[in-house]
Amino acid sequence: MNTFGNQFRITTWGESHGPAIGVVIDGCPAGLSINNEELSLFLGQNDRPIPELATGRCEANQAVILSGLDNHITLGTPISILIENTDYCRKDYEQINQVFRPGHGDYTYFKKYGTPTQSGGGRASGRECVCRIASGYIAGKLIAQILPHFEIHSELTKLAGMDISDPADWEKAVNRAMQIGYAGDSSGGVIRITVKGLPAGLGNPVFGGMNACLAAGLLSIGSVKSLEIGAGKSSADSIGSDFQDDFIETKEGLGFDSNQHGGILAGITSGEDLVLTLAVKPTPTINLPKNGATPGGKIKTISINGRHDKNITPRIIPVAEAMIKLIVVDQLIICGYLNKDRIMAAKQNEKKEAVV
Amino acid sequence: MNTFGNQFRITTWGESHGPAIGVVIDGCPAGLSINNEELSLFLGQNDRPIPELATGRCEANQAVILSGLDNHITLGTPISILIENTDYCRKDYEQINQVFRPGHGDYTYFKKYGTPTQSGGGRASGRECVCRIASGYIAGKLIAQILPHFEIHSELTKLAGMDISDPADWEKAVNRAMQIGYAGDSSGGVIRITVKGLPAGLGNPVFGGMNACLAAGLLSIGSVKSLEIGAGKSSADSIGSDFQDDFIETKEGLGFDSNQHGGILAGITSGEDLVLTLAVKPTPTINLPKNGATPGGKIKTISINGRHDKNITPRIIPVAEAMIKLIVVDQLIICGYLNKDRIMAAKQNEKKEAVV
Amino acid sequence: MNTFGNQFRITTWGESHGPAIGVVIDGCPAGLSINNEELSLFLGQNDRPIPELATGRCEANQAVILSGLDNHITLGTPISILIENTDYCRKDYEQINQVFRPGHGDYTYFKKYGTPTQSGGGRASGRECVCRIASGYIAGKLIAQILPHFEIHSELTKLAGMDISDPADWEKAVNRAMQIGYAGDSSGGVIRITVKGLPAGLGNPVFGGMNACLAAGLLSIGSVKSLEIGAGKSSADSIGSDFQDDFIETKEGLGFDSNQHGGILAGITSGEDLVLTLAVKPTPTINLPKNGATPGGKIKTISINGRHDKNITPRIIPVAEAMIKLIVVDQLIICGYLNKDRIMAAKQNEKKEAVV
Amino acid sequence: MNTFGNQFRITTWGESHGPAIGVVIDGCPAGLSINNEELSLFLGQNDRPIPELATGRCEANQAVILSGLDNHITLGTPISILIENTDYCRKDYEQINQVFRPGHGDYTYFKKYGTPTQSGGGRASGRECVCRIASGYIAGKLIAQILPHFEIHSELTKLAGMDISDPADWEKAVNRAMQIGYAGDSSGGVIRITVKGLPAGLGNPVFGGMNACLAAGLLSIGSVKSLEIGAGKSSADSIGSDFQDDFIETKEGLGFDSNQHGGILAGITSGEDLVLTLAVKPTPTINLPKNGATPGGKIKTISINGRHDKNITPRIIPVAEAMIKLIVVDQLIICGYLNKDRIMAAKQNEKKEAVV
Repeated sequence: MNTFGNQFRITTWGESHGPAIGVVIDGCPAGLSINNEELSLFLGQNDRPIPELATGRCEANQAVILSGLDNHITLGTPISILIENTDYCRKDYEQINQVFRPGHGDYTYFKKYGTPTQSGGGRASGRECVCRIASGYIAGKLIAQILPHFEIHSELTKLAGMDISDPADWEKAVNRAMQIGYAGDSSGGVIRITVKGLPAGLGNPVFGGMNACLAAGLLSIGSVKSLEIGAGKSSADSIGSDFQDDFIETKEGLGFDSNQHGGILAGITSGEDLVLTLAVKPTPTINLPKNGATPGGKIKTISINGRHDKNITPRIIPVAEAMIKLIVVDQLIICGYLNKDRIMAAKQNEKKEAVV
Repeated sequence: MNTFGNQFRITTWGESHGPAIGVVIDGCPAGLSINNEELSLFLGQNDRPIPELATGRCEANQAVILSGLDNHITLGTPISILIENTDYCRKDYEQINQVFRPGHGDYTYFKKYGTPTQSGGGRASGRECVCRIASGYIAGKLIAQILPHFEIHSELTKLAGMDISDPADWEKAVNRAMQIGYAGDSSGGVIRITVKGLPAGLGNPVFGGMNACLAAGLLSIGSVKSLEIGAGKSSADSIGSDFQDDFIETKEGLGFDSNQHGGILAGITSGEDLVLTLAVKPTPTINLPKNGATPGGKIKTISINGRHDKNITPRIIPVAEAMIKLIVVDQLIICGYLNKDRIMAAKQNEKKEAVV
Repeated sequence: MNTFGNQFRITTWGESHGPAIGVVIDGCPAGLSINNEELSLFLGQNDRPIPELATGRCEANQAVILSGLDNHITLGTPISILIENTDYCRKDYEQINQVFRPGHGDYTYFKKYGTPTQSGGGRASGRECVCRIASGYIAGKLIAQILPHFEIHSELTKLAGMDISDPADWEKAVNRAMQIGYAGDSSGGVIRITVKGLPAGLGNPVFGGMNACLAAGLLSIGSVKSLEIGAGKSSADSIGSDFQDDFIETKEGLGFDSNQHGGILAGITSGEDLVLTLAVKPTPTINLPKNGATPGGKIKTISINGRHDKNITPRIIPVAEAMIKLIVVDQLIICGYLNKDRIMAAKQNEKKEAVV
Repeated sequence: MNTFGNQFRITTWGESHGPAIGVVIDGCPAGLSINNEELSLFLGQNDRPIPELATGRCEANQAVILSGLDNHITLGTPISILIENTDYCRKDYEQINQVFRPGHGDYTYFKKYGTPTQSGGGRASGRECVCRIASGYIAGKLIAQILPHFEIHSELTKLAGMDISDPADWEKAVNRAMQIGYAGDSSGGVIRITVKGLPAGLGNPVFGGMNACLAAGLLSIGSVKSLEIGAGKSSADSIGSDFQDDFIETKEGLGFDSNQHGGILAGITSGEDLVLTLAVKPTPTINLPKNGATPGGKIKTISINGRHDKNITPRIIPVAEAMIKLIVVDQLIICGYLNKDRIMAAKQNEKKEAVV
């Protein structure tokens, strides 16, 4: 439902049109230093990675931590974070109040809950993702205690239909996305995420595999329409003798001569980088007219006035990174690397034992 | 771990090299007629959809139902199904006993569990999927009680690197996959799955959405390297005014003029067909030499003798369909369409109430 | 951890010494009317059922509902309730700051989390129970939609060591509890709870039985030291021919000539009243000196100054009732009586179908 | 439902009248030595602790381990155990086929599932408990790797209504239970269980406390009608200055001068012995006539012919011990003492760190 994770678990709440949103984080070990100001700063920095493609800034996203801390140190008890909707972008709600917007959750929420049109979108909003980013901030601080070489690199490999491989491509693609946006329309993009510094042996087999967990987490993000692991879709075009990565000997032990598997074999990390690729659909809210519908079953053309995200893809990056960090922390706890009660490493002697 | 689902839940067990595999199905309502022979027949029919691309037949897959039935009618109690490994394809295990095979779970299981090389692959084997198919058979029978128009259509849209859109393409692609296979190598493919007959309003928002559930289920299948929903990866190339599907009025109520969203909006079904696309990697077991490794950290070249699946893609279809059925049944229970205790519909008056 | 329930699920957070406490309720169907003022009123009424046995009133317990509502009607999304610790009884924390108090969680929290002495008790405090009572208020409103004859009757059958069977006993027992309290000490009591109006057939067999669920919920309340179902401990003294309740024919169908089983057979409700008996230990906080200890391992005698609950037993009643309501709602959803998406009955035709 | 536990998790299946019963154990670390013969021996030894009070022996309880092992060493994968119902006590099923037996689950299963009378009791049977005992055997072997001083002592403190405090009492009570049994009737009893050797700091606060977990596990056993922790019901008669256990200094660190809290404070173990007391109701199956009922709603007097358990209390002991071991292992994993992947201690330096 609104809870994600097993031993490190978040529960998010709040509608974009309500007074506040928030998250309760359960399972964070005691002893972690958390700074309220740093968290708010992190939220600010991660809210609009490419500001010119996003809506105008309208929320300060001041996070308030209401529980789970004593003198900025976690107690092991639930961490409740609240973020007020102080000045949330007021759109022309009058207009959309009685219409299901295309590409939004208004209609499906209505079919499920019977709730009024203007409420349906309130939960299924990008605003909910701020809670994920806040949780990911804490997850990231935990990972840093255990995995010193952990890093996530995300890059846009496509924007507004244009491939990006160098700064020149980048400039062209951003310009194109802005042109489309100024024309009242929107565009999508592709994100490639590389996760470095994970040990081999993380994850669980069969239904609890890293692939299954990452898929559940990343495809729970509203605008994401595909997930590829490693070589992804192009795996289908390969042959086995090329595709399967050969083992090699390295100074640090066994490795692979390539990484088409994307860091996961049989649900368990291989020690290679995790490589994940996400496709993001164009922002559903646009100024151009589209056919919505009324609860009475009639078509009604609407064009949303006001600002909108010209391209939502950059804003998906911190959300995806947050989901990955949440999954990694959960697996670190489940697989015995991180103690759920107190921060301390549990597998320091692992390599030695494993090879004996 | 080895359990999938919430209110309709399966737990699979068994290694390919052990005496048997099996599954316990919990949450199946009382009153469903299940025929042991039909189940075994179903398993036989779904084991090798394109026999010439699979290994030679070596298992009868006789399923024995050990609990949960009285006179072939479910009791509401757990259904335990056991399938003996009567004559499981004996490969040249001598050769691979001391080597981690490339593309398999041998190495990652070893890193996680420290278990011997020849055991690692035993659980992370396609053989485990027979249990999913058996569970999907029962899930399918339940769905048929509630959703009379439910259907799953799966098609191979690519095989051995060749696009398939007509029977001529099909023949060429299968021939190419066989040639590659006879040469001791293997190939992959792409599966497009269309799920018809789901009501609008199924699924849960945020982390429990249909997209998240389907992603977890389908990417838990070993060889699947990508999942796309609706327009999938190509969503990234579209613009919002084209991409978002307009509402239309139909005889049965509201609908959409297109289905780029793929039947899910904000995690909840829209009433349109679910459209899911999976890419399958080439079979890891091939006859050509590849570099494996020993537990001691040394490279060792291996070529697996004997028969292998020339292309595993067709065999993924019944597994993927099973996972989808398991998810649909679980959601039908959770969303109140199907009673977990006894078979009876709960939402018969839904449409009426929803529109009032 | 800090979450209770399956399909109707609460997550509580907050320390007694922090700025606020709260709860997130997930799984409440859409369409329920909830009134913020009524909730605060309910909390006020249920906080100190027998004020003279409780500490002096120091909290207004104004609950603020931050999400999940639109015009006082539930949306189906998580309901976040926040209650400020506006003026929480400030005790002589200076004194106890460096000492583990006997009978409290200070020491065990320290052993688990390594957290400072004064924080340990903050989560393991009766204050956390306000969140349960608030959740129980909403659960109770849901039950009323489905089970018109549902009622919970709770009575103190023992207080301060004195049996209570009539008003004269009651007066004596309360007086005795007050005398003990004025002497700086505390006392315990026994609560018998009768739950009326549940249908037969609720609950799940084996590990998910009503007995198991009720046990988990009621023994999660800090001061409760025993739970008895039906005849409870005295069952051990009976013989089978007396103990097993005979069936009888009633106007409404089958019934029982007695209720020693306490309304649950094989984990499933029988249609008879649930009868549950709880023993509550004496309040741990007292004015008399007791031997606490320091984190350094030294004994330190402490006597807590200021007001304390003379007898905590009456305050356990609304908490126990809340836990029961939460369990009943969860089972109503799981067993198909209550739709998790929207309020509507699903088993109206049950009796008819069951007997056919 | 039929699954118990979180990270160490069992799923039981099987009806007493079916071909077999069994359990799937998920989450057992790799590297544990398990001997099939020892398991069967353990089942035999624990099936009828006091044979003269039980039914005549009719099952060999040969357990077959079908998965999860390689050369008698666990792999980390699910352990599937199957026990055939080779010669299960054939009762006069003809007679009871059409009658709900008093004190059994026949009626409540019928109300829930609508299943035929003779099937209802099949799952809600003491036979299911053999699977718990088998799982407890494995849990016990795991605990022994981590907690060298772990021990469970169980004693009957009451049998057939007679208190037992010495061997003379014991003889009288057993004689009385046998007399009652020979007269075609049955009796109950009380079990006190002491668990030694647990570290302080085990368990989770609030809903995941040891008290809540133990309550859920022990009250899921069919015949158990009450659970007391520590001083239990008599806590209600005490006063705070007597009841709360004072801290004392010991050679091993802090301890308590008494153990009325029963080893758990605020849901977390204190390092003192766990003390749990269970009351067991008289065996429901007796030879004397009782009023059952038919599915049509008519009373029908039945007296069950043949042998029955004169007193079921001794047979509850190994089941209760198994549930305790399952909970302890689960908590050892969750709290970081036991690695879910491989057997190795994680908290060896705990005491040192905790006190620093």
